[in-house]
Amino acid sequence: MDLQQAREQLIQLQEKMSAYNHAMGLLSYDGETTAPRGTADNRAHALGILSEITYQLSTGKETVELLEFLDENKAALTEKEQRMVFLLLKDIRFMQKIPMDEYVAYEKLVVESQDVWYKAKNQNDFPAFEPYLEKMFEAQIRFARYAAPDADPYDYWLNEYEPGLSRQVLDSFFSQLRQRLVPLIHACGEKPLIPEDVLKGDFPEDKQEELAYWLMDVMGLNRDRVGLSTTEHPFTTSLGSHLDERITTHYHRQDVSWSMYSVIHEGGHALYDTGSNDDLAYTVLDGGVSMGIHESQSRFYENILGRSKAFIRFLFPKLKELFPEQMAAYGWEDFYRAVNRVQPSLIRTEADEVTYSLHVMIRYELEKQVMAGKLKVHDLPAAWNSMYKEYLGIDVPSDRQGVLQDSHWSFGAIGYFPSYALGSAYGAQFLAKMRETVDVDACLEKGDFAPINAWNREHIWQFGSLYTPARLLNQVLGAPFDPSYYLDYLENKCREIYGV
Amino acid sequence: MDLQQAREQLIQLQEKMSAYNHAMGLLSYDGETTAPRGTADNRAHALGILSEITYQLSTGKETVELLEFLDENKAALTEKEQRMVFLLLKDIRFMQKIPMDEYVAYEKLVVESQDVWYKAKNQNDFPAFEPYLEKMFEAQIRFARYAAPDADPYDYWLNEYEPGLSRQVLDSFFSQLRQRLVPLIHACGEKPLIPEDVLKGDFPEDKQEELAYWLMDVMGLNRDRVGLSTTEHPFTTSLGSHLDERITTHYHRQDVSWSMYSVIHEGGHALYDTGSNDDLAYTVLDGGVSMGIHESQSRFYENILGRSKAFIRFLFPKLKELFPEQMAAYGWEDFYRAVNRVQPSLIRTEADEVTYSLHVMIRYELEKQVMAGKLKVHDLPAAWNSMYKEYLGIDVPSDRQGVLQDSHWSFGAIGYFPSYALGSAYGAQFLAKMRETVDVDACLEKGDFAPINAWNREHIWQFGSLYTPARLLNQVLGAPFDPSYYLDYLENKCREIYGV
Repeated sequence: MDLQQAREQLIQLQEKMSAYNHAMGLLSYDGETTAPRGTADNRAHALGILSEITYQLSTGKETVELLEFLDENKAALTEKEQRMVFLLLKDIRFMQKIPMDEYVAYEKLVVESQDVWYKAKNQNDFPAFEPYLEKMFEAQIRFARYAAPDADPYDYWLNEYEPGLSRQVLDSFFSQLRQRLVPLIHACGEKPLIPEDVLKGDFPEDKQEELAYWLMDVMGLNRDRVGLSTTEHPFTTSLGSHLDERITTHYHRQDVSWSMYSVIHEGGHALYDTGSNDDLAYTVLDGGVSMGIHESQSRFYENILGRSKAFIRFLFPKLKELFPEQMAAYGWEDFYRAVNRVQPSLIRTEADEVTYSLHVMIRYELEKQVMAGKLKVHDLPAAWNSMYKEYLGIDVPSDRQGVLQDSHWSFGAIGYFPSYALGSAYGAQFLAKMRETVDVDACLEKGDFAPINAWNREHIWQFGSLYTPARLLNQVLGAPFDPSYYLDYLENKCREIYGV
Repeated sequence: MDLQQAREQLIQLQEKMSAYNHAMGLLSYDGETTAPRGTADNRAHALGILSEITYQLSTGKETVELLEFLDENKAALTEKEQRMVFLLLKDIRFMQKIPMDEYVAYEKLVVESQDVWYKAKNQNDFPAFEPYLEKMFEAQIRFARYAAPDADPYDYWLNEYEPGLSRQVLDSFFSQLRQRLVPLIHACGEKPLIPEDVLKGDFPEDKQEELAYWLMDVMGLNRDRVGLSTTEHPFTTSLGSHLDERITTHYHRQDVSWSMYSVIHEGGHALYDTGSNDDLAYTVLDGGVSMGIHESQSRFYENILGRSKAFIRFLFPKLKELFPEQMAAYGWEDFYRAVNRVQPSLIRTEADEVTYSLHVMIRYELEKQVMAGKLKVHDLPAAWNSMYKEYLGIDVPSDRQGVLQDSHWSFGAIGYFPSYALGSAYGAQFLAKMRETVDVDACLEKGDFAPINAWNREHIWQFGSLYTPARLLNQVLGAPFDPSYYLDYLENKCREIYGV
């Protein structure tokens, strides 16, 4: 094989893959946004065939030979090419271990399972979803055993979502959090409850949509390349490359902050993805490197920036303009305090910053138990409800507001949740570093995200998946990751708002 | 090759093609409905790669050998299989004659050209679209020459859209129409102009959307399988199979009838497609057989049913309910007369039933001239405007309301327009036949489309593309196609409404 030719084939292979990924990503996106409800089988038919073709393309003899040849000659490759080969071989070595019929069946399961979950949630019918969720856990255990026979299946998936993670690491991480957050939440709970009436009322969808687009503009999202749709559960997806990004939200008519913070959260993901250098487009280096770093960006924009005093002072006049009657009796301080209220609650995506990690912990504990065979899927609702009582002190009135609330398990994302808490913790340490050169508060007071985005682009976004999360963190921080930045940040905020 | 195996491969080939068609159809649909404006290049990248793969799949050695083997053994095949092989070989024999790089470039051109057309129309900027339209005509001439070197290129495309059609046939068809329609339009023009004020006013989009969904239900469209979106120019598309159909409309706030008749028109297409027998799904026999038959269904629902006195009597109470203030001063007769008003106008899709065919004639004449090299694309706007003056007696104030009004040319549909007029004429002859067994007016008065749909499904829809248009027409009508049914129908309506 000729090396120069092989390098060209490496690019062509990734371009082809990006076309299939674009098509399959769009099929899923269409299923979540626009497609008529009864078309899941028809979509599964196409996805089944395309995923079989993709499987062959990614793991076929020709591809494996190409990549192994390049791997043997890696000294002659650029840093980018080396990373491409590493990432492509990683997937191949995974895919090679999964029998093709099981992989194809799994892709179909993902489509059907999402559809069933959607209906089951609407009808508060966990038993309808149960067999699909069982199959989903079974598949993840089977796939992990194929991929890493010696590893614990849950450790395998944790490490897949965030290289370096394991139950051991997370048990320690969550224990540090628990140690300082449990007393903090308790202390806040002793103080009078902050009223939320400024957030509640009747907020027409069209005005909320106007707010959503305004926020996208303020955040510096390029609307020529980033679209907004509505779905049951908000998400972000790149189609083909970072040059076509979609975020989604869900408008709750009675609560102005729900969609608002979804848009800022998904907008953070979209900023990270679309911030890749353009020459990474149509390669595996395009877009964010790991779930943890991704969540560090989304939760950085949502919470650290989006719930800061400086940003709320900038934002509030816009809310007054869009909702003059609803906001008539309030000032920015009311809004600031309300979006930072600490109170144990039912729904993760609506949880405040401080209790949020406990929601994540519960999912982590439950996944860990089901993956270890210590808990049956059938018993998940009961275990869920009992942990919400134990950690958050609240009763779960229905599975719809309990175990059925998140879409993640329905599409097989088991081991993903911990990255939400981890990302928050990364973000707080990024903030400390950013403040060394950027006057973050001054920017937010003016609604000028450009210097903040420029810092993130320079240090994080532009590299796409070129560096491992560990190397990227080290490059950005110049120090090891330390959760105490996050805990300090939360304690400071509670001190300011609650005086605790 | 083993015959049984070959027959199975025939099915697998079509299933694979349907998956690619689903993906590529969805990419285009997304581009027209949801995608952010600046993503056309990114989409073109994926479409370019997928169309190259599809080209190889459809015309590759393995496929050709399979189909030729089956063709040689066609005596042993079922009627369905024979037709599949015929249709697949037809495409192969076309594709084989087009150099792959030209085909791939063309697919990219289609994506870019639509995007440019959209902007050019908005900005009334024909020169921006001109180079794309030139390339589009050039490509169609080149492709026709590759496909049928001895045929006239325009005849080639006419016959592609409607097997059996040629300039000769259409010159005669349009001449019969002209002979009876020109005096008819003149006679109506001598009478007092029917007021349209019942249609005009302020009709909020959300109420128009409610009407659209109500119409879909009344027409018997299954909303679990048929979706509705908004686009610049309404259209209908099947994704993967007739089991996922999408129609689109465009709400004009000042005119309640615009979207209404778009929905009924596209709904007619969707009824035809989704009426295919389910065992045709994922084969080339799925969905309508030709543009002419397709338009016979869409225009049958839009005009023959949708503008009938019986249907308007059924519909009007719903309009009163949705738009009580706007309709307060009117009765069903006002609405009936208004939607059947005859008056030469600028926009084809807004033209009345009687003048409509003249709009089509103009496009036919212009396409004929450009394809023959007698007219330059550069001179299309002037020629367009002069023909509108000549045939319809009106001045075209801008290209946006003139030569840029239709999307068809932007995606290469040259030779498609005549089928609109032809379809209308087929529909009138179908109506006469249907009336032999179905009391159409009684059904419409009750809003009961079931017997009408059942007749169409029994005689037309269920067969998908199994029969040629000629055989299907012959089967349905038991007599040759005769445009005088159409002309009689139009004259009767004008007699009733105008007393001419």
